[in-house]
Amino acid sequence: MPFDHITPLLKSNNSKIVLLVMDGLGGLPIEAGGSTELEAAKTPNLDRLAAEGMIGLSTPILAGITPGSGPAHMVLFGYDPLHYEIGRGVLEAAGVGLHVGRGDIAARGNFVLLNEKGEIRDRRAGRISTEESAPLVERLNTITLPGVELEVRQVREYRFAVVMRGSDLHPEIDDTDPQQTGVPPLPALAREPAAEHTAELFNQWIAKASQTLAQNPKANGLTLRGFSSDPNFPSFNKAYGLNAACISVYPMYKGIAKLVGMELVDFEGDAPDDEFTAVKKHWEDHDFFFIHIKKTDSKGEDGDFHGKVEVIESVDRALPALLGLEPDVLIITGDHSTPALLRTHTWHPVPFLLWAPATVRPDDQTQFGERSCAHGGIGHFRALDTMPLALAHAGRLEKFGA
Amino acid sequence: MPFDHITPLLKSNNSKIVLLVMDGLGGLPIEAGGSTELEAAKTPNLDRLAAEGMIGLSTPILAGITPGSGPAHMVLFGYDPLHYEIGRGVLEAAGVGLHVGRGDIAARGNFVLLNEKGEIRDRRAGRISTEESAPLVERLNTITLPGVELEVRQVREYRFAVVMRGSDLHPEIDDTDPQQTGVPPLPALAREPAAEHTAELFNQWIAKASQTLAQNPKANGLTLRGFSSDPNFPSFNKAYGLNAACISVYPMYKGIAKLVGMELVDFEGDAPDDEFTAVKKHWEDHDFFFIHIKKTDSKGEDGDFHGKVEVIESVDRALPALLGLEPDVLIITGDHSTPALLRTHTWHPVPFLLWAPATVRPDDQTQFGERSCAHGGIGHFRALDTMPLALAHAGRLEKFGA
Repeated sequence: MPFDHITPLLKSNNSKIVLLVMDGLGGLPIEAGGSTELEAAKTPNLDRLAAEGMIGLSTPILAGITPGSGPAHMVLFGYDPLHYEIGRGVLEAAGVGLHVGRGDIAARGNFVLLNEKGEIRDRRAGRISTEESAPLVERLNTITLPGVELEVRQVREYRFAVVMRGSDLHPEIDDTDPQQTGVPPLPALAREPAAEHTAELFNQWIAKASQTLAQNPKANGLTLRGFSSDPNFPSFNKAYGLNAACISVYPMYKGIAKLVGMELVDFEGDAPDDEFTAVKKHWEDHDFFFIHIKKTDSKGEDGDFHGKVEVIESVDRALPALLGLEPDVLIITGDHSTPALLRTHTWHPVPFLLWAPATVRPDDQTQFGERSCAHGGIGHFRALDTMPLALAHAGRLEKFGA
Repeated sequence: MPFDHITPLLKSNNSKIVLLVMDGLGGLPIEAGGSTELEAAKTPNLDRLAAEGMIGLSTPILAGITPGSGPAHMVLFGYDPLHYEIGRGVLEAAGVGLHVGRGDIAARGNFVLLNEKGEIRDRRAGRISTEESAPLVERLNTITLPGVELEVRQVREYRFAVVMRGSDLHPEIDDTDPQQTGVPPLPALAREPAAEHTAELFNQWIAKASQTLAQNPKANGLTLRGFSSDPNFPSFNKAYGLNAACISVYPMYKGIAKLVGMELVDFEGDAPDDEFTAVKKHWEDHDFFFIHIKKTDSKGEDGDFHGKVEVIESVDRALPALLGLEPDVLIITGDHSTPALLRTHTWHPVPFLLWAPATVRPDDQTQFGERSCAHGGIGHFRALDTMPLALAHAGRLEKFGA
């Protein structure tokens, strides 16, 4: 694991590292011989940074593997997702900004429709709208159980997340979703004796929730899946000696950042400008800034090539504010590719730019794009190398061996 | 291992994948500043595919390691030869098309010349010619033993392979070749109690064979090496969910394909045209086609630079028939390099071309050759990534994590 090699070499200094992630940055041409989104975008600032710094192509997980957002970010932070697994419940909770502390148990929930015999008629409650399910989530949040704290938050439509907080809780509990209709939801069953008490608490909660929902015509029951607890990752501070901040509009990425111990920065607005202003405001408080730009991915998933181009251009226009802070190391990349052509996350390698005026070895590339990155000085590499490269270029790693 | 990460992500669709292996494709210039065989060949079709797709250089095993045909193909199929070992006996048997089923025991055999005291005078029977040894193999094939089935096949000159089929056979048996002259062949000795019965059967067979050969003036004895059984690899179907076909003229490659559960396609002729016609005939029956072209390697081993160029050009001319089938993913590569200059397999990285009209990220290369592949969009990579890349570009892999 990277930490085994990196952590013992850490040294401290006053350097500032910025990791700017444009979600789903990597793209594809939409016509034969055409440009990708990043190549098509007019990006004078990014191109200047590419010319002064070095670029390359990173593989998020392994060749051919398309990452979800969780693993794609974990790997940028240096946590190999083939080793460090985040439970589905924790990821869903983190995704809506629900705090999962050490020893807490999170689960994903579905509202379902039951028939008069208590058998599931619809596993997704007819894909009930977000507006319709919001008051149901509110009612679930009124349920109390002795000795534990409970928090429920809406995800969207028929989906919600629930977190149970208390002492001696264990997540080894089977899903209550039977994955079929015509049968009742399963009880929460412990897979190990240690989890029996937790399963019993969830069953009590489910019983109260079922009473609360009973009269609702569309969603009169629920199922829970992916019981899991805080994955207990080594914190960013412990792994890298960095006091890290997360600047993100979307809860999902805040949740992931929190799992590695980053501090969440609150700010107004949702444009790149707003995010960079937030960085400026907290510049003295941290030495590592993870900035997340969501809309590159959203436009990619919408199949909106030109929209994605515009988001990239808006980031480029806002960049001078960030550069004015004079970071020692600035990495600009994506967590994965989301080509508008394919409207989904893909496995294609991701453009990567490393700018560090005092320490970088420049290559001969002068534009930031997929084709130029294929010829860049960093070459093709695993995204897991991101943090070691950032720390080295910030002068934060001692020599290995004498 | 790749399967650990790939197999859980598999999804099914109607895509067709073609893996066209030109054996020993990688080459070297024969004069300073000159072209390699692939660069010298006129290949308008390959160049068009390179322009539309992406190219790179693959390392079969590890830097500097020259692979044999067995491991070089296994790695293309995604079976890491550093982990999945094929016994030498099985590889020799597979190489001459001798079937080694689950529980069968294969060994490599040498004809030897013994003196009047039964000591080995020549460990290779004076490199007896293939013509001279053929009738000896025929005689060995008349030997029977109760309870087991035996099959012997000539390899060439003094070499043959033998397979024993029966129940409860075990391969943990030491070589009978003492690796020196002036001593008699060793008896087959079991390394484990479970293999004692099998060793005894081989000793009975050796005794009968020695009687049969006793009067032959050049080859009056034999030694056996590399006792091994079916390596029990996960099948291609289990590993990848693919119903794979092997189109090969040479028994060796059929044997390897069979070890991973590919179906062997029978066809007439031995030209690239004939192989592609066979693919066309069976296009509806399979979703993965491994096509093996032998003569690139043969010409390389002959030191025949221009002959190798001509074979490459003949493949290029035949390609339109294959393209007419409209595969979703077409990979064209070699299993290793066999530069005519060096007349042998080498460790040099192998030109690799991936064409997939719906999903590939094109690079800026327009020719298929070693120098252009060094600048290609795939970069330098391990050949073990071949199958994950093929599956991803065919849309056959789900996202990893949420």
